[in-house]
Amino acid sequence: MDYSEMFSEDVGSFFRSPVREIFKKVDLNAIYSFAGGYPSAETFPLEEIRKTMSEVIDKYAGRAFQYGATQGVPELRQAVAERYGVPVERVQITSSSQQGIDVCTRVLINPGDVILTSNPSYLGAIQSFKSYRADIRGIAHDEDLEAFRQSYEAVIADVKAEGKIVKFLYMIPDFQNPSGESLTIEERQMLVALAQKHNFLIVEDSPYRELRYEGDHVPTMYSLDPDRVIHLGSFSKIFAPGFRLGWAIAHPEILDKIYVCKQSLDLCPPIFDQYVAAEFLSSGRLDENLKHSIELYKGKRDLLLSLLEEHMPEGVRWTHPEGGLFLFLTMPEDFDAVRFYDKSLDAGVAYVAGEFFHPDRAGKNTMRLNFSFMSPERIAEGVKLLSKLLKDEIL
Amino acid sequence: MDYSEMFSEDVGSFFRSPVREIFKKVDLNAIYSFAGGYPSAETFPLEEIRKTMSEVIDKYAGRAFQYGATQGVPELRQAVAERYGVPVERVQITSSSQQGIDVCTRVLINPGDVILTSNPSYLGAIQSFKSYRADIRGIAHDEDLEAFRQSYEAVIADVKAEGKIVKFLYMIPDFQNPSGESLTIEERQMLVALAQKHNFLIVEDSPYRELRYEGDHVPTMYSLDPDRVIHLGSFSKIFAPGFRLGWAIAHPEILDKIYVCKQSLDLCPPIFDQYVAAEFLSSGRLDENLKHSIELYKGKRDLLLSLLEEHMPEGVRWTHPEGGLFLFLTMPEDFDAVRFYDKSLDAGVAYVAGEFFHPDRAGKNTMRLNFSFMSPERIAEGVKLLSKLLKDEIL
Repeated sequence: MDYSEMFSEDVGSFFRSPVREIFKKVDLNAIYSFAGGYPSAETFPLEEIRKTMSEVIDKYAGRAFQYGATQGVPELRQAVAERYGVPVERVQITSSSQQGIDVCTRVLINPGDVILTSNPSYLGAIQSFKSYRADIRGIAHDEDLEAFRQSYEAVIADVKAEGKIVKFLYMIPDFQNPSGESLTIEERQMLVALAQKHNFLIVEDSPYRELRYEGDHVPTMYSLDPDRVIHLGSFSKIFAPGFRLGWAIAHPEILDKIYVCKQSLDLCPPIFDQYVAAEFLSSGRLDENLKHSIELYKGKRDLLLSLLEEHMPEGVRWTHPEGGLFLFLTMPEDFDAVRFYDKSLDAGVAYVAGEFFHPDRAGKNTMRLNFSFMSPERIAEGVKLLSKLLKDEIL
Repeated sequence: MDYSEMFSEDVGSFFRSPVREIFKKVDLNAIYSFAGGYPSAETFPLEEIRKTMSEVIDKYAGRAFQYGATQGVPELRQAVAERYGVPVERVQITSSSQQGIDVCTRVLINPGDVILTSNPSYLGAIQSFKSYRADIRGIAHDEDLEAFRQSYEAVIADVKAEGKIVKFLYMIPDFQNPSGESLTIEERQMLVALAQKHNFLIVEDSPYRELRYEGDHVPTMYSLDPDRVIHLGSFSKIFAPGFRLGWAIAHPEILDKIYVCKQSLDLCPPIFDQYVAAEFLSSGRLDENLKHSIELYKGKRDLLLSLLEEHMPEGVRWTHPEGGLFLFLTMPEDFDAVRFYDKSLDAGVAYVAGEFFHPDRAGKNTMRLNFSFMSPERIAEGVKLLSKLLKDEIL
């Protein structure tokens, strides 16, 4: 059968995640993997989870396995609302924060509408944006606030000249994926002011916000304009990704569209998992566990930074993330991280080429390194091996 | 803020599930609820589930809470493939079978494309189809096979005359939601032949197939043309809906589009839940439990049928389902089940008006009754009350 004429136009814009394709081909435990954004399995408190699950069965019995409300079970919505100091009417539980990104795009974007984002930006978001045929404009960071603002203004002026509409700005203000960098309060204020001036929304994606290893928390963009910013959160990095649970916080009028959309997407988030997350959160177990995760990841980040300092060849630079799971490496101009990848994988080291995170396919000489997944020992061996490979290539 | 200009065109076609809106407003346990498609909570084997969960933690440890493959965990894909006798390459695990419907629509439908379906048909599917701005044509069942075929041919001829394309036929061949009726083998063959003749696909939705209380299994439409039919299954009715797990079985070329779409939708189905379902299936516990569910539901169906016979006024007819969770009531021509609903709910009985299941808003004098959710005692009281209300209205 010839299926080529069968598919929708959207399918023509689908593209495969290069990260997920890597995972299909190699056993992550058999190589040194700086690829992926996997939390360390050590951070999953197995016995506490087992206990909580049993408690949920005792407490909710059949209700824990029945259908539930599309907005999420009341207990989890309430727990999220209290944790982040927002009214419960503003909380929608999502079946993963990836779904939060996807459903925002679905309810906001017509083909050709413009989404502004950082350059580089999160690959899963770019995938989702492209799948709805959005026109993605990535804007590089600039240390100079006024110059940064002007690059945004220039892109917005272009978009208007083309007769197109900026629908929203997508940002990960804390410990960005892939760069590991954060936006200052002034930068957040500047972007919110831009959104107000040009009347677009902001989707603030915050999966890493609570994984801070140094410095002070910076206010969320949501707190700067709660009616204009949709704030997305995730249990994947503060609890466990296997539950596929996240949340969206937004004005009830926006949330209502997301709610109706979710009815036909999947009816409701997984019920048992929601009760487990709610119990874990409200019992204080989540915060207790998060403390250990932060300690563990801080140690891994410090280790990676010192190893890079010690082993990387001249001409390689990297970011210094204050939190999160990633840092970003920049090699000399003529380096090609996509081409280098096969060599690296053959030698046993995986990373993700930075190009994939750039909507404009720039960043050929960059790569993302994850420091949460591997043990300190394997991080050390992996960095030594990668440094040696890079030395051979660059020098 | 004025959000009215912010939303995508799709949003204009979203509509709320009247069933889910009912659930938001009333406590299902406080009324006689023939609404919804909830399994009975008695069928959730709490102690077996608790044991299985603990086993999964022992067996898979951290892996049970980590990210996983977009196609589903290999253990569950394998168990589904074996159960239904299909190659594992043809199995995609979905985060609920509602997601299966939605993702099929997403990868196949452009706005204006035609979907053929039964009239009435499943509300959640109609919601999803409308949300992608599909043109839905519902075709009523006809006992006469040739007349049934001709109604399809007539609609297809209309569609072609309008310059539109039939992309797929959506069918629930076994114990349909809402009517409870099944297609004969001849009807299935006729529909598959039509799809071959006019070159469209078939989405076969089979959540109730294993809940048969009498008669012999009829072959799936998938088995009649495995390259043209996408078969959707669900754990919601044979295990528990709270896990939000289902599967799609299809030609690898179709599955590949669904797979890439799912990457940006939600990355992967819930991992822990998948391992629990896989263990439950491969240990034989699922089949053991299913036997009890079938026995329980058969009793409830028989009870409902005999109660209707005994209490319903003249002029009310109903279907005789050989399985599933529903039967369908037809009142005299001038009865309006939507208008009657408020009166019924005030008196303490909930149902779903048949009109909502008709893409063309026909069926004003019909209603769907569920017999899985309530206890036999409450079914009996509920039927007596509903019959009395109907008598007052009709006579």
